[in-house]
Order: sequence, then structure tokens, then C-alpha cells
Amino acid sequence: MPGSAFGTLFRVTTFGESHGLGLGAVVDGCPSGIQISEDVIQQYLDLRKPGQTKYSTPRKEADSIRILSGVFEGKTTGTPILLLAQNETQRSSDYSELALCYRPGHADYTFDKKYGFRDYRGGGRSSGRETLGRVAAGAIAAEFLKTLGIELCAYTKTIGSVCCQTDDYHTLLLAENASLSQPLLDRISAEGLQALRAKKLGSPLFMPDHAASRLAEDKLSEAMMQKNSMGGIIECIISGLPAGIGEPVFDKLDAKLAQAICSVGAVKGFELGSGFAAAASNGAENNDNFTSADGQIRKLTNHAGGILGGISDGSDLVFRAAFKPTPSIFSEQQTVTQDGTPLTLQVKGRHDPIIVPRAVAVIEAMAAITIADALLVNMGTRLEHIQKFYETKERIGSLYEHQK
Amino acid sequence: MPGSAFGTLFRVTTFGESHGLGLGAVVDGCPSGIQISEDVIQQYLDLRKPGQTKYSTPRKEADSIRILSGVFEGKTTGTPILLLAQNETQRSSDYSELALCYRPGHADYTFDKKYGFRDYRGGGRSSGRETLGRVAAGAIAAEFLKTLGIELCAYTKTIGSVCCQTDDYHTLLLAENASLSQPLLDRISAEGLQALRAKKLGSPLFMPDHAASRLAEDKLSEAMMQKNSMGGIIECIISGLPAGIGEPVFDKLDAKLAQAICSVGAVKGFELGSGFAAAASNGAENNDNFTSADGQIRKLTNHAGGILGGISDGSDLVFRAAFKPTPSIFSEQQTVTQDGTPLTLQVKGRHDPIIVPRAVAVIEAMAAITIADALLVNMGTRLEHIQKFYETKERIGSLYEHQK
Amino acid sequence: MPGSAFGTLFRVTTFGESHGLGLGAVVDGCPSGIQISEDVIQQYLDLRKPGQTKYSTPRKEADSIRILSGVFEGKTTGTPILLLAQNETQRSSDYSELALCYRPGHADYTFDKKYGFRDYRGGGRSSGRETLGRVAAGAIAAEFLKTLGIELCAYTKTIGSVCCQTDDYHTLLLAENASLSQPLLDRISAEGLQALRAKKLGSPLFMPDHAASRLAEDKLSEAMMQKNSMGGIIECIISGLPAGIGEPVFDKLDAKLAQAICSVGAVKGFELGSGFAAAASNGAENNDNFTSADGQIRKLTNHAGGILGGISDGSDLVFRAAFKPTPSIFSEQQTVTQDGTPLTLQVKGRHDPIIVPRAVAVIEAMAAITIADALLVNMGTRLEHIQKFYETKERIGSLYEHQK
Amino acid sequence: MPGSAFGTLFRVTTFGESHGLGLGAVVDGCPSGIQISEDVIQQYLDLRKPGQTKYSTPRKEADSIRILSGVFEGKTTGTPILLLAQNETQRSSDYSELALCYRPGHADYTFDKKYGFRDYRGGGRSSGRETLGRVAAGAIAAEFLKTLGIELCAYTKTIGSVCCQTDDYHTLLLAENASLSQPLLDRISAEGLQALRAKKLGSPLFMPDHAASRLAEDKLSEAMMQKNSMGGIIECIISGLPAGIGEPVFDKLDAKLAQAICSVGAVKGFELGSGFAAAASNGAENNDNFTSADGQIRKLTNHAGGILGGISDGSDLVFRAAFKPTPSIFSEQQTVTQDGTPLTLQVKGRHDPIIVPRAVAVIEAMAAITIADALLVNMGTRLEHIQKFYETKERIGSLYEHQK
Repeated sequence: MPGSAFGTLFRVTTFGESHGLGLGAVVDGCPSGIQISEDVIQQYLDLRKPGQTKYSTPRKEADSIRILSGVFEGKTTGTPILLLAQNETQRSSDYSELALCYRPGHADYTFDKKYGFRDYRGGGRSSGRETLGRVAAGAIAAEFLKTLGIELCAYTKTIGSVCCQTDDYHTLLLAENASLSQPLLDRISAEGLQALRAKKLGSPLFMPDHAASRLAEDKLSEAMMQKNSMGGIIECIISGLPAGIGEPVFDKLDAKLAQAICSVGAVKGFELGSGFAAAASNGAENNDNFTSADGQIRKLTNHAGGILGGISDGSDLVFRAAFKPTPSIFSEQQTVTQDGTPLTLQVKGRHDPIIVPRAVAVIEAMAAITIADALLVNMGTRLEHIQKFYETKERIGSLYEHQK
Repeated sequence: MPGSAFGTLFRVTTFGESHGLGLGAVVDGCPSGIQISEDVIQQYLDLRKPGQTKYSTPRKEADSIRILSGVFEGKTTGTPILLLAQNETQRSSDYSELALCYRPGHADYTFDKKYGFRDYRGGGRSSGRETLGRVAAGAIAAEFLKTLGIELCAYTKTIGSVCCQTDDYHTLLLAENASLSQPLLDRISAEGLQALRAKKLGSPLFMPDHAASRLAEDKLSEAMMQKNSMGGIIECIISGLPAGIGEPVFDKLDAKLAQAICSVGAVKGFELGSGFAAAASNGAENNDNFTSADGQIRKLTNHAGGILGGISDGSDLVFRAAFKPTPSIFSEQQTVTQDGTPLTLQVKGRHDPIIVPRAVAVIEAMAAITIADALLVNMGTRLEHIQKFYETKERIGSLYEHQK
Repeated sequence: MPGSAFGTLFRVTTFGESHGLGLGAVVDGCPSGIQISEDVIQQYLDLRKPGQTKYSTPRKEADSIRILSGVFEGKTTGTPILLLAQNETQRSSDYSELALCYRPGHADYTFDKKYGFRDYRGGGRSSGRETLGRVAAGAIAAEFLKTLGIELCAYTKTIGSVCCQTDDYHTLLLAENASLSQPLLDRISAEGLQALRAKKLGSPLFMPDHAASRLAEDKLSEAMMQKNSMGGIIECIISGLPAGIGEPVFDKLDAKLAQAICSVGAVKGFELGSGFAAAASNGAENNDNFTSADGQIRKLTNHAGGILGGISDGSDLVFRAAFKPTPSIFSEQQTVTQDGTPLTLQVKGRHDPIIVPRAVAVIEAMAAITIADALLVNMGTRLEHIQKFYETKERIGSLYEHQK
Repeated sequence: MPGSAFGTLFRVTTFGESHGLGLGAVVDGCPSGIQISEDVIQQYLDLRKPGQTKYSTPRKEADSIRILSGVFEGKTTGTPILLLAQNETQRSSDYSELALCYRPGHADYTFDKKYGFRDYRGGGRSSGRETLGRVAAGAIAAEFLKTLGIELCAYTKTIGSVCCQTDDYHTLLLAENASLSQPLLDRISAEGLQALRAKKLGSPLFMPDHAASRLAEDKLSEAMMQKNSMGGIIECIISGLPAGIGEPVFDKLDAKLAQAICSVGAVKGFELGSGFAAAASNGAENNDNFTSADGQIRKLTNHAGGILGGISDGSDLVFRAAFKPTPSIFSEQQTVTQDGTPLTLQVKGRHDPIIVPRAVAVIEAMAAITIADALLVNMGTRLEHIQKFYETKERIGSLYEHQK
């Protein structure tokens, strides 16, 4: 529990500093039999890769991950999977000035206070580069979820004050996909999710509303000229999750998601379903009434965001994460050195003017890891399921059969 | 890790159903030597006790906790502390109808899907009554924090659309306490916290802005007449926390707080410092510049909310939780029975028209537990601190001294 | 992880001091649907109850457990189960002298060094009475295992130098149950286990070899006259466990059993299968060859004790625990007070001259808890099993069915 | 908790298969400021390196570890340390036959039953080669312990029936080091430990009794000629550990050591202090009386092995581990294939005729990791220590000082 590991049964430990020799993750407790390869993981990593648009750092990073253990003949073996990216470019000189002073909005000061000193090169352990290990591990989780019919889609909802026009992803989808059958109620359809994903990938900022995306691009260009940076909100939808997942009280599915999401650097807020807006709502409006459709119990609306009492209710999971503006800005800032001497700092190097688009893959990864873990933990919940499981696995009674 | 326990070293496990024989908590890993008594715990519990104003359920609950283990001669012994409230009133008949149908906005449906059946009396395990164990355990955590100079104060920030006039608690305090010295920068003063706490206790809704409180009372009365309910936002300030607390990456102090807070029933969102507003801000505005004051490194502002890179920065911790409106409303709602048959439901019983004021004590409790745990985990961080610790405890070298 | 909890998914936390107001356990993560009652638990507790023979303390203990939560209409609900025994007799005066001095072989000194002070009444937290909570929690685990066809039987193997004549429980059983079919190979039969259990219960010392039992009784009477005490070895057999249980590397099934068993007070050693004797053996003798019988893979012998590479192999699990002699003896002993002053101590009170027979139920309980947890953790191991599980639980694909 | 990680605060996760691309460990929660280098770790690894004597496999292994993260300018930073050995020689052809059949005494069968398939090359994950990661991580733990004056020494106590002449390491030392002052009582001296370590390193089998060592070498040569293998017992002494370490009940220091030690492949038993012999002893003999020496409380004997009630008592820790004979023997054995077809197997490849000498470093490593973790967890035990810690770290009260 010393901080760099997450998950009870599907357990991810990340390691590595921005400018060290290597970074990545170990995935312990991954079920055996999942088809995985470096190529598949790379597809996930490519979504967080820098240098792809003018809104992300032109820095080239060696984001290629190698699988060093836990996979045999193309499938996971159930043993720990080491995912390693060795660092190549180590242009640390940009950072030498930072050894002694504290960048506003960064963890330099707090790492020094906690550990007595720090690897100051490129933010060291608190660099956004640490999320490479998260995305690689999340790729395995997402591939696992797919085999159970569970899909995730995160996208940029707002950048600064520019918000995707349609607040409701259902409406967005229906407007553009007339063929989608009504009523969607509390779940996006499989085609709907595909459509949403396609729209998202059509924007360099991963905003499915392309008009909003173009407006946000203008705002970003403006901010960059002013040596400033912007923040934004990412929304994530998880579809296909069966009801009953999540452990009540402290390990509620939303509580674990909140931890997972707020553990991503620069995240300042998390909300589920109607979120903060629920606080200004009233019970009659905010409650989701139950109904029956095609022999299933469903909800007429989904203000809950797919979780009731910490347990998934079979509706889509919908949550949002608020990101602060990139703290590395190129305008002058006031700060101090380790001994408290005031200093005017002008950050150098190559930095994203906005974190949000590259963080979309990270949010999906953390959500996938959280859900994968919850699915495994949930398996031991009901006696009848456990009995059926062990009967299916191997008829336990047969242990004595030969004696009869 | 099956859900009802929280914390790595200071570990709280709650147990109990709303209408079972008893409920409470076990606190394992509590340091020895903390002065604690049932009377002290009762003071914390009184803040969440129902039936004190017309805005909380008139239901009488046996909220008196007994300490059955782990305390000897008035002090914690370091062994597990059992905190037990035995239930007295068990008027379950109100709930018999609920055995078969699912209340909108409640966990009835999801518990059935997860466990196959449920203790339906009064919400069973997912009842707000479960928080009694949290508050009792949180009382011990808060008393522990006090001995280290760390104080917490949570209060109602908004009810529905009514918000405490002053968004900034510093301004609020300065306006009413002219004697408080300037500049406060990133920390409330000890007197300031006392003043804030006094203002909060002066309102039946725990709103320190009394004008706002009166307005909110009107809105609540109106909602009650309409058989409706309201939501709101609680803000919590933690002062006196040293810099360096919290473990980077997945156990960031804000991530653990997010889990702790989102594990409270009816919470739909969590934010730290500038929170969701940060998403619409820009880097130049949102970064907190460092300065030097009285030989200490301080921040000129506190948009970060007291945490940088997951580690406390010595400023006040400031976070907010959004609560949905009470789902138990007295107007008619549409729902279904276990087999999917539609049903018009009119909830009976005694229910709070708003959860927020009674939840203030719960938020403080969860924050105290999280901080207490983080302080203990942090102790093993630096070799020089560990060496000093074990030297202070007992000179290790002296083990061989008699041989000289 | 602060010490009083055990298990990852099936998680037991014990609490309580010997002479406090109450003690017991919370079981978190227990599957829903297990039939359990106070009466059933009492049957397990009766096996560790004092005062039943002249070889156990004549002390009367209020060993009756109440279930305060987590059980509804006779079945576990999946929520935490509070098992509470309130203490009645609190004759603490026997212990007043012990407040200041350290009993040899007890934890008085180490508790003082760790916590600064201690609840000295009757050993406080380190009293054998703490095991009451373990046995109550173990009863639930054992009832759960029964529903999967898994049975446990522990018994006294040696007392002092008196050992059950037959070192091999198979031979013992075959000799007395001619009807048992040959060959048993690596597993006891269901009837064999029943026979073993019956023999064990026929001895006041729980020794299935009754001649050895009578000899041991004589030795014990002798030791009691000399104000001395004796130790012994308990053997435990677990039958019906499917192959594949246990997690490799650090959570090997034998490693977790070793922790569970060595966490019982007075245990000084643990061994599995051929155990310490294996160290003096050779590979050709000690290896268990595989064979095929009735369509199953079996082992010709079971020196391994049912675990290979930390994972159950389908054979019976066989392990042993060595108990030291009761440290509370009535002859004079040399010790010191808190400040180091030498003292001649004569222990008063009522103490077992041997711990072993009463500990048999405790060993079974710890084994049952360990196995129950391992079975739940194991469920998330293989993709094909997980897919089958969630298909069985509810066809995931059907989430989209209504749209077709 | 999926099996490949150990420790609560000082947490080691190993990864890697015998013939995969790489193996090693991640150490999360290591305190910052510990001086460590690849060279220092190599010294520890050299003690388990194969091919050094004729009693270990002539196989050459690329046992060189690289540190890829968590160390900066020669010191640990407090962030996860990745220790990686990339595999070079991958002569897997020896193992192709093993893909389909199960070697007696190995984990082939159980891995197949658990995971559905396995990486069969060289034992895959269950290979002894996995311990390389443990020894590398243990090296860091041991270096940390040294800075606190805590030293470990494990050595071969028996091989087959050949036992180090002197059962008591104190006597051994005194006999050969007349200058060591009397009485040692319950602790070896610093010089004594050095002497013991020197004697151990003087034997190719790490037996400090060189006459016994020579006899054991003869027996081993004989076993090798007979295509057979041998087992043995390792004893480990930990000196300098302060009293008060270890958490009562389930995380007793001996219980965690038992888990750590029994998690090492081929270990079939664990005992502390007088161990299994205590079962045949009596209370008067086995109790260690307390005394006072040079102002300290000490024990006149150390049958307890340095732990009372799960907490260290300030005496030396003394424990033993029993190892079974190497299961890979070159004589013919009976086994079956995956489908149960009988098969006569003759193991090929290069295998140690005895595991014990190479396992000495592994036992030391696991002990060091266990003790390091226990020391960190213990820091949060007493309020007065915590207060002193945070006062020392930074005067908490001073947060408000500037306002005065």
C-alpha cells in the first residue's frame, strides 16, 4: 500500500521516472488466457503519444512498450506481466535549473518536503510520463473487458469554456444516427458507442462535437500565443457492464473510480452521472424511475450514472473528470528556491498547452483497470454462484467417486 | 478488501444494518495512548443525530455508542477498538412493502442483483445509519489529529441553489473578525477556524452564512410541502497539516480523500481546491506562486486546495462534496417489483428532506480517518526520519553495550 | 494491515481483550446465502470451551456468541457479520500483581515495549481468549466449505513425547475400517474422515489413538502435580479441496496457512506433508509420482501434503503445528518488574496445563478461513472461467438485445 | 493481493519466468535516502549464483541486475525501484518434452489445473530463478536494516542427516572465540555474528561447522552418483532488532516470517526458537526467565527465538526452514501426461543436487524484507512516538507562528 499500486485482485504497480532508464508497469493478478501483444498495447499508447498535433508537446518520446514476462504464445499466463519502456532521449539539461527551485503548480516542493530530495529531471516520478505505464496496463484491462462485452469510451467534453454542444451523449448520437432505435433509456447501443468513438477520433482534441472542437482549437492557439495554458473536462462512458458490480460501503464502485481518476495528475474533480448538478436538483427530478423493457428491469433516466449504492445498476456508467490547466507555462512566475529565496522563473522545455486530449487515454485506462478489478472481486459474492463456478470448473463431488 | 474496511494502517471496518441488532465499527491500528471516552465520541455523533430540527427525520435513533475493547483506563491501547450501537427501535413494518419492490434512487435493486436477496428493512446495509460507525471511528481519528495540531471543519456550502454568500472562507472570516491579522495567504488561522466553526453551529443547517441559511430553510420548507427533497454541497477545511503527507501515484492524498468521500451514500461528486472551476481557468490564473513568509515557504494563493502531486503542501486542505437530493420522497413514483411488474410507489416512514446537514459530521469523519492513516503511512518515508525515530525510541546500538 | 485482520476477500478482523467488555470478530466479504445460526457456531465454540475436562482450566467463560449483523432470515447477506461475546465474569483481581511484572513466556514485556502500557488483566489482547473470535469466524468459513464438499479435521497428534501410534492416518483408518476400499493413495475417503473425527471426539485430549490418549493423560496428571505444563503437536487434514487453489509466489497456499497457523499463540512451528522429515530424505523417496485412476490424475503418495508450487494438487492437505507448553505454570519463576527489579513470581489464577486440545478447534478455524479466502481469490484466475461465470450469472450480450 | 507481492509498506513484487525475456522485482515503499548500487546488490546475488561449486547446477545464469528506476545520484528516492535481469541464455529445448507431462515434485500439474496452460520452459514462473528478484529486493532491505544496526546471518544447519555439530550457535562461537565475553544470554555479539558469517563463507555449502560440511560434501557426491538429491535445514539469526516490532494477532512477526519463508519454493517447514522441540518440552524448561543486565531487561535463555506474542523481545531472532530434496532427479520416475497417459520420465537439463546452499541467500532476503516492513509499520504504534516524530520532522505548531 505504499502508493504505486492499485487494485485488489487485478493489481497494477507502476514504476519509473521521466528521465530515468525506464518506466512502465507490472500487472499482477491478470487472468490467464487473454490474447495480448505489444502491437495491441501500442494502439492504446498511440492515443496518449505526444507530438501528434500542435496542441501537444513536440517532444518525441520512446513510448514503445515491451512485454518481458507473463505472456506466453500470445496469451497471458496468469503470472505478473512486466511492461517496460526504456527511455531513450534524456535531454535533462532543460531541467538543471529546476534542481533548486520549485515550479508553481508542480510537485517539486512537496516531493522535497516528503522525501528530502528528488529526481528533478523532467518532473521525475510526478511527470505525466508515468501515465505511460497506466495506459499499457489499462490496455490489458480493456482487452479483458471486451471479451465480456464491456466497452469504454472517454472523450473531451470541455476545453476552457468551450463545451460539446450537446450535454447529453444520447441526443448527440440520435441526432446523427437516425437509424438508432428508440428508446435508449439508460444505455447507449453498441452502434451508438461505435459512432461516438468515431466522432471523437475525428477531432485532434478528441471532442466528438466537431464545431466545438474547432472553436477550442482557436482558443488553444490564442492561449499558446499568450504563453498560457488551458484546462478541460473529460467524460467517460462504460457500456455493457452487468448489474451487481462494486462492493458496498468503502469500496463502492464510484468510490474506487474516484480514487482511480483523482490519482491522475492534474485532476481536480470527479463526478458521476448528474454529479455536482444533482446538488441543485430535487428528488422528484433526480430520481431515476424503474421500468420494465423486454423482460429486463431498466431505468427511465440515468441521473445516477449507472451506480446505485456503490453497485452497478446495469445502466451505462457515466463519469467526468476536471483537469486543471497545464502548470508548465512559459510566462514568468514568482517562486522560491529550496532555502526560501524568491526567484522569477521562466519555464523552458517542451510542454503541452493542454493536458486533456492526451489524458483521454489515461482516463479510459484507469476506468478499465478499476472495472476489471471489481469484476474479479465480485465473483466471490454469492454462494450459489460460487457453487456453480466450482461445479463447472470440476465436479467437486467426483473427488470420491472412484471409491463407490 | 471486501468493501467494508478503509485505511492501510489506521483501518476502520464498519458493520451493521439499519434495523439489525447493532451497528458500529472496529478501528484496528489506532495508536496507543490517545485519550478517548464514550462521552467524547458522543459529541461527534450528536452532530449527525436525527430529530434535532424540522429538517431532519423525526425518527429517534439509539445513537449511543459503547466502547467494548481497545481502550483501557481512558486511553487507547493500540489494539482493535469495537464501537457498538445496539439498535432499540425496530419499527420495521414501514418497510414490509419494500421487500418486493425497488425504491428509485436507492440501492434495493443493486443489492438484489449482487447478493440475490437483501435485508430490506430500512435500507439494510445501504442505510444512512451505517454512517454512525464512520462518525464514531472518525471521532477517534479527529482526537488523534488534534494532538498533532490538525483540525477539521466541514460545513454546508450550498443547499439547492442557495449558496453561502462568500465563496471564499477567508473573506468571510476577515469580514467578521477584524482582529485577524493579514495576510492569511494559504492558511486559515487557529482563531479563524474557531470562528468558522462557531458560525456553522449557529445554523440548524450548519451554514456559516446565516442569511443564506435562513433562505435555505425557506426553500426546504417549500420542498417538504411539495413532498420533495433537496441536495447540496459540503465544504471541508483541514488546517495544520504538515507538508509531505500522502503517497504519490495511486494513493495520492486527494485520491484517497476522493475514495473516502465518494464512499458516503448520496455523494455524486468530489473536488479539491478550485475543482471543476479549474477546467475553465488558465495556467497563469490557476497556478499558486510560491513565496517566503516568516522563514517558511508558503503559497500566495491556494487554488490547489493544499495538495500538489498528491502530497500535502502545507496550505489548508479544501475540498467539496456534492450530495444528491434525498431519494426517499413522499410523492408517487414509478417503479417495478422483483419480477419486473410495474408499480406506483409512495414511500412511507420518516425521512430527511435533505441529507446534507447531517452528513457534515460524516464528511469530517471520513476526512479525519483518511488523514490519520496518511500520517501513519508517511512515517516510513525517509531514512533519516526512521533512524531518528528508532534512536529516539531506544538507542539501538545499546543492544551490545553490556559486552564492552 | 495493522495486524488484527486476515484474508483478502474473506476477511476476518478479531477484537477484544480477555477481561474487557466483549470480544469477537467481524467477517467481511462472506458470500451471501450461507445458512448460519448462533447454534451452529456454538457447536464449533464448544470444542474450545474451557472447564470440560480436568486438563483444561476450570474457569467458566461466557463463550456464547451473538450474531449482530450480516445475517437475515437465517442466511448470510454478504455484508459484514459481527460476532460478539460479551464478557461476564471479570475476576481481574488475580491479575493485579501482573500489572507491574512480566510473566516468562508471555507477551507482557513485548506489549509494554511496543505500546507503552497494556491491559494487563488476563493477558489482555494476547490472551488465548482472543481465539474465540477466530473459532466463531472459522465456523462460518467451515460451513461455507461444506457446501463445496470440503471438510476439515484437526486432532492432537502428540502430547509431550507421547505420539499417536500410527504416524499415517490412512493406516489408522484402514486398520479400523476394513470396509474402506483400497487404494486410498493421496486422499482420505469421506467415510474415513468421519471415522477419524469420531475417534478424535472419543478422547478428552482429541487424540484419535485412544491408547496414546490414556498415556498422555497420565503424563499430564503428573505434570500438573509438579506445577508444570506440556506442549504438543496438532495435525490437520483438509479433504475435498479441488486442485488449482492458492496463488503462486508470496501467497502460496502453504505460505498463507503458515501465517494463519503461526499467528495462533504458542505455535512455534509449522510443517506441510513430510515437513522437517523431508530435509533428511532424498528426492527419489520424497517425490510423489503421478498416476491415473478412474480418469483422474492422482499421486501415488502424498509427501507434498497436497500442495505443489503453492497450489493445491487435489490430494488431501496435511499440515502440523507445534505448540509450546503453557507458559503459565504454578512453580516459582524468576522475572523482573517494569523498571528491571528482579522478582520471584508465582502465577495464580486458573490455567490450562496444556493448550493443545483446546487449540484443535482454533487450528481448524484458521485453516478454514485460509481455504475459504483462497477459494474466492482463485475465481478470477482464468479468462474462460470468468466468461462462463458472467454468462451463467446473466448473459452479458443481452444488454443490447432489445435493440435488435 | 494476487500473490506476487509481499509487504504492507515496504512492498516487493516479483515478476518473470525462468526462460522469458527478463525477471526481477519492483520495490515500492522503500524509504528515501538509502545508499544502493548495482554493485552492492550483486554481492548479495553472488551468494545464490549457480555454477560456483560442483554441488550446484553448472548452468550459467545472467544474474546481473540493473536498477532502472527509484535511485538517483546513488540513493533511493522513495519511488518504486525496478530491478531487472534480462535473460540471455534461453536454451529451452531441454524442456520441450515437459510441455506435455508433469514432473513429480514440481508445480507443472498444479499450474495447468489453475491457469489452463503454462510457460513450461524451465519451470516458468515456479522456477527457482524467480528468487533472483527476491534476493535483489532483499539486498535493499538488508542495506536499510544495517543503517539501523540490524544484521542477518543465515547458514546451512543440516544436509540430509548431517547436522552442524553444535546445535547452539552461541556455544559454537564461544568455543572458537575465547575472547568473546560471557554471558551472551539471549544475544549474539556483533563480533560473534561476524565470526559466524566468516565460518559460513568458509564452506562451499555455507555450513559454519567445517567438519560437518566435509561430511555433507561426501554424502552429496554419493547422492549425485546415484542420480538422487538431498534436502536440508537453514537457520537464520537476526541480531540488533529492538523490542516491540511486529503486530499482534494475525500479523505477528513470526506469522509474517512463516509466510515469507514458506513462500520460498521447496520449503516444507518453519520453526522459531525451540520450534518443534518445544512440543516435547515442558513449561519450566521452555519458559525464558527475565533478568536485568546493565540496566536492560534481558532473557536468561532464548527458547522463544526472540518473539513473544508476535512481537520482538529484544533477543536475537532465530528461526529455521526445512527444505525438501531437489525434485529434479536424473533417475527414472513414473508420471502422466496432461490427458492422464502413464509415462516414464527421465529429467534432463542441469539441476542442483541440493537447493539448500543457494537458498541461504533467499532466506536472508525474505527475512530482511519481512523485518524492514515490520519496522516501518511499527512506527505508527504509539501516540507519544508519533508526536515526537512530527515535532522532529517539523514543528507542527509553527504553522500559526507568523500570526502571533
